[in-house]
Amino acid sequence: MEQNKLNDNKLNTKLVNQKKLVKIAVIGAAGYTGFELLKILNRHKFANIVLVTSNQNESKLISEVFPSLLDFKNNQKFLSTESKSFPINILLKSNVVFLCLPPFESMNFIKNYLLDYSGLIIDIGSDFRLKDYKDYKYWYQNDHILKDSLKDFVYGIPELYFKDIKGSKKISNPGCYPTSVILALAPIIKENKLFEIIDINIDAKSGVSGAGKKLKEMYLFCSVNENFLAYSPLMHRHIGEIEQEIKRISGKSYKVSFTPHLLPINRGIFSTIYCKIKFLEAVEAKKTITTSEEYLNTDKNVLELKNYIDLQFKSFYKNSNFVRFLGEEIPQIKDVVNTNYCYIGYSFDIRTNILKIFSVIDNLLKGASGQAVQNMNIALGLTEHEGLII
Amino acid sequence: MEQNKLNDNKLNTKLVNQKKLVKIAVIGAAGYTGFELLKILNRHKFANIVLVTSNQNESKLISEVFPSLLDFKNNQKFLSTESKSFPINILLKSNVVFLCLPPFESMNFIKNYLLDYSGLIIDIGSDFRLKDYKDYKYWYQNDHILKDSLKDFVYGIPELYFKDIKGSKKISNPGCYPTSVILALAPIIKENKLFEIIDINIDAKSGVSGAGKKLKEMYLFCSVNENFLAYSPLMHRHIGEIEQEIKRISGKSYKVSFTPHLLPINRGIFSTIYCKIKFLEAVEAKKTITTSEEYLNTDKNVLELKNYIDLQFKSFYKNSNFVRFLGEEIPQIKDVVNTNYCYIGYSFDIRTNILKIFSVIDNLLKGASGQAVQNMNIALGLTEHEGLII
Amino acid sequence: MEQNKLNDNKLNTKLVNQKKLVKIAVIGAAGYTGFELLKILNRHKFANIVLVTSNQNESKLISEVFPSLLDFKNNQKFLSTESKSFPINILLKSNVVFLCLPPFESMNFIKNYLLDYSGLIIDIGSDFRLKDYKDYKYWYQNDHILKDSLKDFVYGIPELYFKDIKGSKKISNPGCYPTSVILALAPIIKENKLFEIIDINIDAKSGVSGAGKKLKEMYLFCSVNENFLAYSPLMHRHIGEIEQEIKRISGKSYKVSFTPHLLPINRGIFSTIYCKIKFLEAVEAKKTITTSEEYLNTDKNVLELKNYIDLQFKSFYKNSNFVRFLGEEIPQIKDVVNTNYCYIGYSFDIRTNILKIFSVIDNLLKGASGQAVQNMNIALGLTEHEGLII
Amino acid sequence: MEQNKLNDNKLNTKLVNQKKLVKIAVIGAAGYTGFELLKILNRHKFANIVLVTSNQNESKLISEVFPSLLDFKNNQKFLSTESKSFPINILLKSNVVFLCLPPFESMNFIKNYLLDYSGLIIDIGSDFRLKDYKDYKYWYQNDHILKDSLKDFVYGIPELYFKDIKGSKKISNPGCYPTSVILALAPIIKENKLFEIIDINIDAKSGVSGAGKKLKEMYLFCSVNENFLAYSPLMHRHIGEIEQEIKRISGKSYKVSFTPHLLPINRGIFSTIYCKIKFLEAVEAKKTITTSEEYLNTDKNVLELKNYIDLQFKSFYKNSNFVRFLGEEIPQIKDVVNTNYCYIGYSFDIRTNILKIFSVIDNLLKGASGQAVQNMNIALGLTEHEGLII
Repeated sequence: MEQNKLNDNKLNTKLVNQKKLVKIAVIGAAGYTGFELLKILNRHKFANIVLVTSNQNESKLISEVFPSLLDFKNNQKFLSTESKSFPINILLKSNVVFLCLPPFESMNFIKNYLLDYSGLIIDIGSDFRLKDYKDYKYWYQNDHILKDSLKDFVYGIPELYFKDIKGSKKISNPGCYPTSVILALAPIIKENKLFEIIDINIDAKSGVSGAGKKLKEMYLFCSVNENFLAYSPLMHRHIGEIEQEIKRISGKSYKVSFTPHLLPINRGIFSTIYCKIKFLEAVEAKKTITTSEEYLNTDKNVLELKNYIDLQFKSFYKNSNFVRFLGEEIPQIKDVVNTNYCYIGYSFDIRTNILKIFSVIDNLLKGASGQAVQNMNIALGLTEHEGLII
Repeated sequence: MEQNKLNDNKLNTKLVNQKKLVKIAVIGAAGYTGFELLKILNRHKFANIVLVTSNQNESKLISEVFPSLLDFKNNQKFLSTESKSFPINILLKSNVVFLCLPPFESMNFIKNYLLDYSGLIIDIGSDFRLKDYKDYKYWYQNDHILKDSLKDFVYGIPELYFKDIKGSKKISNPGCYPTSVILALAPIIKENKLFEIIDINIDAKSGVSGAGKKLKEMYLFCSVNENFLAYSPLMHRHIGEIEQEIKRISGKSYKVSFTPHLLPINRGIFSTIYCKIKFLEAVEAKKTITTSEEYLNTDKNVLELKNYIDLQFKSFYKNSNFVRFLGEEIPQIKDVVNTNYCYIGYSFDIRTNILKIFSVIDNLLKGASGQAVQNMNIALGLTEHEGLII
Repeated sequence: MEQNKLNDNKLNTKLVNQKKLVKIAVIGAAGYTGFELLKILNRHKFANIVLVTSNQNESKLISEVFPSLLDFKNNQKFLSTESKSFPINILLKSNVVFLCLPPFESMNFIKNYLLDYSGLIIDIGSDFRLKDYKDYKYWYQNDHILKDSLKDFVYGIPELYFKDIKGSKKISNPGCYPTSVILALAPIIKENKLFEIIDINIDAKSGVSGAGKKLKEMYLFCSVNENFLAYSPLMHRHIGEIEQEIKRISGKSYKVSFTPHLLPINRGIFSTIYCKIKFLEAVEAKKTITTSEEYLNTDKNVLELKNYIDLQFKSFYKNSNFVRFLGEEIPQIKDVVNTNYCYIGYSFDIRTNILKIFSVIDNLLKGASGQAVQNMNIALGLTEHEGLII
Repeated sequence: MEQNKLNDNKLNTKLVNQKKLVKIAVIGAAGYTGFELLKILNRHKFANIVLVTSNQNESKLISEVFPSLLDFKNNQKFLSTESKSFPINILLKSNVVFLCLPPFESMNFIKNYLLDYSGLIIDIGSDFRLKDYKDYKYWYQNDHILKDSLKDFVYGIPELYFKDIKGSKKISNPGCYPTSVILALAPIIKENKLFEIIDINIDAKSGVSGAGKKLKEMYLFCSVNENFLAYSPLMHRHIGEIEQEIKRISGKSYKVSFTPHLLPINRGIFSTIYCKIKFLEAVEAKKTITTSEEYLNTDKNVLELKNYIDLQFKSFYKNSNFVRFLGEEIPQIKDVVNTNYCYIGYSFDIRTNILKIFSVIDNLLKGASGQAVQNMNIALGLTEHEGLII
């Protein structure tokens, strides 16, 4: 990873001196994701919002829809992409377009407006996350209308694909659940020399904003408050992303079990990831012990395992501004809410050979808009954490 | 199961006519469990509370400590078991003693006061749940002071041990997590003729009252609200109970993985139970298919699996007043809060061969005081649901 | 008040012996109020639900819409009042009709179906609460279509109008806020011989279910949770009811200030009622003290005031099953949630001559369905608390 | 008000160029207030934390106690003020000391350590808010040990006392409730030429963090969640502050009624302020109308009233960075949570002559640490909003 931890870079200073700003359009800016994005961009030294859209809030000021943005720097009216007077020229002259749109709408918007766009597209939606259009069809039950573009979009997890993001013009921002899961798995599935993971079972819990601002009975206060439930227990679309990335990182195909649950909180994801592990034969052989179980029945070997895990995580994230490994401490959602951090801890259950990894993020920041701005910063050569206060 | 679903029995009527009441003592009645127990007994036609204790609330009226019990039928003062004037005679003349005490205190109380007690003891605490004192020592890191009594206590899950409970004088009320888990597993681990369960991984989530009324920073409103975390991820004491009962029911020893989490709600448990399954060789052989995976790659076989699961649950709970099987619908905590019900649903993940079972209870009712009264009713020959409103 | 506190009456016993049940229709049974009503009727010894309607849930079983009512005694399908096959005959043969309908719909339903109905109508909605059609027009901005019927409906607060309710055929169930306010004011505005109340200012706070099950952004979990706001700060419709009842009880016209607020909880109302008071001239004269302020600057007189308040409340509610006066203790919402109780406490602020009365109810029970069943019980001559567990 | 809205001033730039930082000590830094203060100072360009204390957390790192501050710029160990090795020299060499201490402890700390301190003291506690030691004794039931110092402390509401704060060495940070109330009243009690306020009745609601991190049963999750109550209904200490400031601003003595309530949310205050108003005689005379009531029974006059209120608020806060007037819109707690803003709206009730003012703040920011840093910035001549992100 080439991230330069917390060093302000020279480009920033140059831009400040030149008073040059990045012209930004936000498409679909009135949902939870859009709101967080606007707040970040409002703090961002180089952001100049030139266009915000919301078909439901046409002609309303940002500060009307979001009273807490009363002093918004670039306060302006939401436009409708469905309106005849939609100013395509402003869109096309912008430097960056963020798409905060529901499934299927990003690809339509790109097809309609951005095929010749020369700036940076960051799709916070889900249309360009799967690289293989067959996977897309399988998980989204829908034909992709821009199959050939899928390969052009970088999967925007900076901790994994910093090089690809730098200078890129097309970034697909990962899903919230996949972000929490992939960051927690990457260090131990990439070239693991001690143990292999036999199967991966993810029990994920998300705050309500993860579902977007939908007027459904299941998202009413009285439906969620003092309640808890699982949903989409078999074929949640995020499985496709998780398996795609696990394969890219580890070189191996996994079928993961993934079960999302709805937490009665506004924001935050807690993923409990169960990895059944087995020591590599080479490792066991060297120690002249025949089974993983025996191997682990030695405190010394468990210690070696823990040291290995520690080492993998620490080295993997040593230059990361936003991922923190807590060792055997368990992270809590409140540690990361309102931040762009991902915190990761683990426990190893010697009785069952299960490595339990705990990963927390704010679904609207590291799981959406925070990571999107992190991607923008990297793509444009700005300091990675600009606007993301750390 | 011999439960008679919802039929008022004759004893009830007789007692009503005779105006005979059951004299009840509640030891440790000022916590969350005690409060729920008092509420149930207040509604119970035959309950006459003759003694309530709380060392922290000595001399306060029940209605002072719990203002919502202002019209409590047997309103009286809490006594202290540490006081010299503690009325042992009242205790010994009672018909039933409920113990709502923290670990280690139940056995002390029994040793001090109840060795010669002729009435019914129901321990809502955890001291007599494990039948083997070595298991007790392993999970509680403590020597049991009444080793020989362990075998005398019936493990009080009426849906499993109705016969043993009936007429019993000593009942150990199960833990809240184990209740939710064992009820969800029993129908498919008992004489399963279609598949075997290779491993069991339980991701459990509990409301805050599950921890009791403890003055710790982690239970303050601002610590729990808008937060979520895992705790005791390796050696939670309830694992011992779960494994003991799985072994009794299935005849097989399992090492289960169990990870409890803290939900920002007052009450309720949601257990997500992951069972990796494999078809029995006999079954597969008969169908001339060699692996479970192949076997399952036929819609017909999946259907057979689902039918089998449905059948097992429905027949197992056909006479049960308090356990409901929802099939492939997912239960929610709010479905059972303030009731003595356990609701169970499932999903079968054909991609990973994992059977996901979802089980919800109210931790203070079916997970504690509700089940305790259910046990009392059965032991005394009363209608099982008296006081438990259904 | 003629209520007989907690005495089961003879009619009950007779009905039990005869196994005679009350045939009940519930119109609009799928909202929060309907749900609570169904739960109470399910526990009610004499209730036989013969008809439930919900235009949105036509043909669904009660237990489908409300999974926690899986074992509902009179489980049946919701019918639609808009359907051609709506069974008017069943409706007309019922003994009691509960209307749980939004503003304007109760009067339409009565006009369409119940003009010749011979049973008991209990309108939990708001159409028949105001007795003067001009008041109705003022507060509801709408012409009443059954002006002449307004006088036929008893305003159903049993603690005030027990005699009128007994044997009545038409009851208008009070609003939730007015119930909490009127019960808190009645004892001191009725024939007060010590002080007069100069003005009344009500700051009321309600849980979200008070608004009904509406799909609006303001009732989404993320809108309400961790938030608090005032709404309808000037002309909330409940003011009309409150002023009407204050006038009936005290004989004096007041213009009250009423400001409702939205609490991030499921259920419960907390009303803080500020009464600026002044001693009656006769009282002051007798004591040769000229102003209230001077009068109050004597501890003895404050004591007299407190004793008077205590006496008024205690004597007013001495036969009441469901209203409890706590003196100078402050009630909490959790004391009454899930019960049909109203708890009332007070503080007298000697610095400002303001009597602060605190009143709590469960808006869905004493504020709606609980009180409705209490009214039904009284009207039919049953035990007042049947089905209301105390 | 001399605040310069949002203009970065020259001193900031100079300091940046000189890389000169403000050396800051935080005494009592492990509570909710301390945590927020640390977060703000971490973002503050010129803050260099040289000392943090917490007697309960001695020797623990900031990042251990607050895992979300894992990347804290000035991460360091908490010291104990009770320890022999407490480094008084570091304290005395600091430029600013923030005191986040419970009642009575600030004055003791100042007496013991800071009598000769030459830097800036900002007391976030309550010991120096009341200027008259008799008031202090009345409201705190305690003798002040530094009576003569009371007058030296500026009451730190920048929107009122900007000039006094600038260059000051001793600032007493206002209470959370008083901040929300005084900001809402100041514009209409200062030289009001249209109406006078007859009495002021404040119904205030606060999130739980307002009570600090206390291990009491009433602050446990299960006590607060799904609950609401009033507390300290007669003599809350904040009344003294409110009355002191009302007198300073308006020149008139008021006895205000103040009733605080506990909201089941982490943070935020909503104050509903009821002002009974009366038009000035001069105003009424001019219009040849004899009573306020008649006067207000003219739409034109109500309009004049509203225009006057609008004008007063807008002109009063025209240069304010952190106070926003919403007119007749009602603010919500979520509009200001996690910000240093105060939002104010109003409704005028023509039926009762009551002006209802609604004021919201984040109790930990504008109500505590945010305002404290705002005060520091002003006192030191820095940009008012440095570190406070707007």
